[in-house]
Amino acid sequence: MAGPYTIGVDFGTESGRAILVDIKDGSVVATAVYQYENGVIVERLPDGGAELPPDFALQDPADYLRTLEQTIPAILRDSGVNPEQIIGIGTDFTACTILPTDAQGRPLCFDERFRPNPHAWVKLWKHHAAQPEATAFNAAAALLEESFLPYYGGKISSEWFFPKAWQILDEAPEIYDAAERLIEAADWIVWQLTGVETRNTCTAGYKAQWSKETGFPSETFLATLDPRLEDIVATRMSAPIVPPGTRVGGLTPLWAEKLGLPAGVAVAAGHIDAHAAVPATSVVTPGKMVMVMGTSLCHMILSSEKKIVEGMCGVVADGIIPGYYGYEAGQPALGDIFAWFVNNAVPARYEEEARQRGISVYDLLEERAAKLAPGESGLLALDWWNGNRSVLVDANLSGLIVGYTLATKPEEVYRALFEATAFGTNRIIKAFEEAQVPVDELYACGGLPERSPLLMQIFADVTGKPLKVAISSQASALGAAMFAAVAAGPQRGGYESIVESAAAMAGVKDYVYTPQAEHHRVYQLLYGEYMQLYDDFGRGGLNTMKKLKRLREEVTE
Amino acid sequence: MAGPYTIGVDFGTESGRAILVDIKDGSVVATAVYQYENGVIVERLPDGGAELPPDFALQDPADYLRTLEQTIPAILRDSGVNPEQIIGIGTDFTACTILPTDAQGRPLCFDERFRPNPHAWVKLWKHHAAQPEATAFNAAAALLEESFLPYYGGKISSEWFFPKAWQILDEAPEIYDAAERLIEAADWIVWQLTGVETRNTCTAGYKAQWSKETGFPSETFLATLDPRLEDIVATRMSAPIVPPGTRVGGLTPLWAEKLGLPAGVAVAAGHIDAHAAVPATSVVTPGKMVMVMGTSLCHMILSSEKKIVEGMCGVVADGIIPGYYGYEAGQPALGDIFAWFVNNAVPARYEEEARQRGISVYDLLEERAAKLAPGESGLLALDWWNGNRSVLVDANLSGLIVGYTLATKPEEVYRALFEATAFGTNRIIKAFEEAQVPVDELYACGGLPERSPLLMQIFADVTGKPLKVAISSQASALGAAMFAAVAAGPQRGGYESIVESAAAMAGVKDYVYTPQAEHHRVYQLLYGEYMQLYDDFGRGGLNTMKKLKRLREEVTE
Repeated sequence: MAGPYTIGVDFGTESGRAILVDIKDGSVVATAVYQYENGVIVERLPDGGAELPPDFALQDPADYLRTLEQTIPAILRDSGVNPEQIIGIGTDFTACTILPTDAQGRPLCFDERFRPNPHAWVKLWKHHAAQPEATAFNAAAALLEESFLPYYGGKISSEWFFPKAWQILDEAPEIYDAAERLIEAADWIVWQLTGVETRNTCTAGYKAQWSKETGFPSETFLATLDPRLEDIVATRMSAPIVPPGTRVGGLTPLWAEKLGLPAGVAVAAGHIDAHAAVPATSVVTPGKMVMVMGTSLCHMILSSEKKIVEGMCGVVADGIIPGYYGYEAGQPALGDIFAWFVNNAVPARYEEEARQRGISVYDLLEERAAKLAPGESGLLALDWWNGNRSVLVDANLSGLIVGYTLATKPEEVYRALFEATAFGTNRIIKAFEEAQVPVDELYACGGLPERSPLLMQIFADVTGKPLKVAISSQASALGAAMFAAVAAGPQRGGYESIVESAAAMAGVKDYVYTPQAEHHRVYQLLYGEYMQLYDDFGRGGLNTMKKLKRLREEVTE
Repeated sequence: MAGPYTIGVDFGTESGRAILVDIKDGSVVATAVYQYENGVIVERLPDGGAELPPDFALQDPADYLRTLEQTIPAILRDSGVNPEQIIGIGTDFTACTILPTDAQGRPLCFDERFRPNPHAWVKLWKHHAAQPEATAFNAAAALLEESFLPYYGGKISSEWFFPKAWQILDEAPEIYDAAERLIEAADWIVWQLTGVETRNTCTAGYKAQWSKETGFPSETFLATLDPRLEDIVATRMSAPIVPPGTRVGGLTPLWAEKLGLPAGVAVAAGHIDAHAAVPATSVVTPGKMVMVMGTSLCHMILSSEKKIVEGMCGVVADGIIPGYYGYEAGQPALGDIFAWFVNNAVPARYEEEARQRGISVYDLLEERAAKLAPGESGLLALDWWNGNRSVLVDANLSGLIVGYTLATKPEEVYRALFEATAFGTNRIIKAFEEAQVPVDELYACGGLPERSPLLMQIFADVTGKPLKVAISSQASALGAAMFAAVAAGPQRGGYESIVESAAAMAGVKDYVYTPQAEHHRVYQLLYGEYMQLYDDFGRGGLNTMKKLKRLREEVTE
């Protein structure tokens, strides 16, 4: 007999996606996607509203509600599943994506008084206009030797909670005053569905420097930033902090009716999209590095111990899987680099050949690059097209390619870019290993692993570690559905823990990418060269990249 | 009244070109080109002969004779000029391009006994199979502190005379024994036309380490290389050494009949093609750097003094213009880099736009790159796609680009490559200036100056020096015709000296590329960064390029 079922809803950057999953085996019974009507708001507010300053990236919370209203009825209809068989709803969200609301959770941008003000809207993760606040935050935290700082690679990002909240205070104090709550969209959507306000350990930990031991940054520290920030936690953020898989509450009658589900269905705590993918690749124990490989690359690994790892993004107790410290690191460009190359550096004859053969340019380059041996191109790259996120934590670094000759071919450069991203991951693995956080195996999910077997093999060959690929191609949504099964609990036909849930619902493909000894030997030599350039260009011995960037800013002012 | 006239014949790599020039004003009355029947011989000897080893590049001397037989009658016919009005013939040749002959100048490859042996044929300048001999020559010369070595940048090339001659001895002693003469094609063709054997100061100086003060390398030194080489100069090379513009002799009756010219017409001494271009850009005095800008870049400058300039190709008394030391330096890739980029790194949409607008991809990139300000791309390159010839003298270096972001555009990379080649020339200029060889102005000739005004402006902006472009687009052939007018001499209606000849026959265009102060300021900053990378990667601080090359050789063996 089929079922029971849970629903996982993945709120992405451009769209939201719901899946209906049979929790017996994790099979996806139906999928629906809603493209956000107002998308990513970067130029002006909807309906001819205010023009936005540079680096703003906003969203409309109404799009999140429409996602639920459109996709959940659709998957119910398409699957024909009896709503009574659905025992839980889980969600995951981009982060840090925050909004100001009133005490009841109503977004300020829904209020006509505040709607014309950009700061009343959702600040999407890639809103980069709070850099001045991030810079000041980091300087103060370093000066005062705040204990949280080393657990975030020594630097927090302008994308994160406090810089964004502080920017509201700086630029729109009237919005800050009216904001009875400042909340992650991940928690807001759960609040909407249940009527219960919580904060999940994942966004609180990775994006707002919360830790199980010491809580959020102290009032003393926050007051040094701005006296008006002293009480921000108490007045605008305080709520129960719940780990993944927690049943926050039951679906409200209002939402039950809107969605066509029974009232009271278990709703799981919010979660970050990448982090929700971890159990969906079957990883619920230490030693296994999960890599979410899409436009960028997010690395996550579990450990029983809390260590300081050079330049990591964060470490959070219960941040990914309850009972473990969840570590995060990342490379800010992966697929984006390959897309840049295909769009800007591949000659017409390659496009023509791909067209004639009915394959993509990516596939043609992959086919040709796969015929090359490691070291054969004579090329080496630094993969910093979008800066370096982990280890160096420096957005002002840039990409480099060395070894060009008059005989250099496009597929050789393409392969060098693949290798460079693998070297970058290898450096991150070494940082974990140096801090006694072991990395034994790699688990890949996201869009790239299925599209590029060569990239997977290169990651295995460079790191010398076996690499497995998740079965699910929508790992974040599946993870959300898995946590929903835990939130429902065994008495409702769900699972006791995410470990149980993963055993039943998640898995990896049969084929394992195994390191090839000869390739690994050559890549160790090349990695030595990579590290020489990495340290010289990345740690200031050769300050070329920053000087070029400063000069560029000067001449384009 | 028109005339008198001279003929200039330029023997290139793929073809030979003759021009008929009115010596009053240097105007070209007729042009004819002969495409060598056997071209560059790299795979096997003509008519199904022996297969060639790697790095061999041979030619057939019969092609040189056919060039004369085809082109000279053609320009006489096309112009309708009375042959009696033709007062001289001058030639220029690729170099070092040498062949073995008997005592009468008959090529050994014309002899059926020797014809099957590759070493009996012409070794073209780009024959690179004598590297072991060049390496041994350099090691011995350095050890023995031979006085000629510093005047050749501390290293001689495998392309030059002694490595090539020694390779014949090593690999085909029977050919070496039969070779009563080993001679540059530049001198051989003059010998054919006149029956008089000479060696010109230009090829002898730049390619066979001859100097006015000390002659060729000593017997003692040559004997240390191989006892059998001790007498090579005495037995196989000795002949009058004549500067450019010398009348070697009159045209023989046999050739007069073949070509349709009067017997006894003055034939000028041989010359290297690039060097013959110098007076054709009107440069006959010190301080003016001539740049022959084609697939590669050759720099030449005159001085009254003999200095040691770091990493130059050579300095030769009377080597370019009689009465001066002629200095040569070079960059082994210029147009070749831009062609590599256009063929390998420009996306289809650019090719499509160029096609639709009926312009070349080069023109499209030039148009877009011209809109960028210096420093705006944030990119910086090292121009070593084909190694570094001058200053570092290292063929194992390779190209580098730093500063890539996800927003980097093809025209930005293209402009960075333009800038890198200009920085490379700037470094060479500094080497001359440091050695007290002043460089006040730049004179460009060759194919690129007319095709890329942007490149010319960047060279002026980077170096801070005015840049003029030769009127003639076939400067080498014009230079040969100018030396022919000097060989004819005033009593036959020619000129007393190349200075007089240049005043009448050569010139530069009206438009002068003048350095723009703001661009020069930014380029000085960028040049500082270029030099940091140049020294780090070029002088062994970062040995990346050589290690990549060695690894490449290892894995492709």
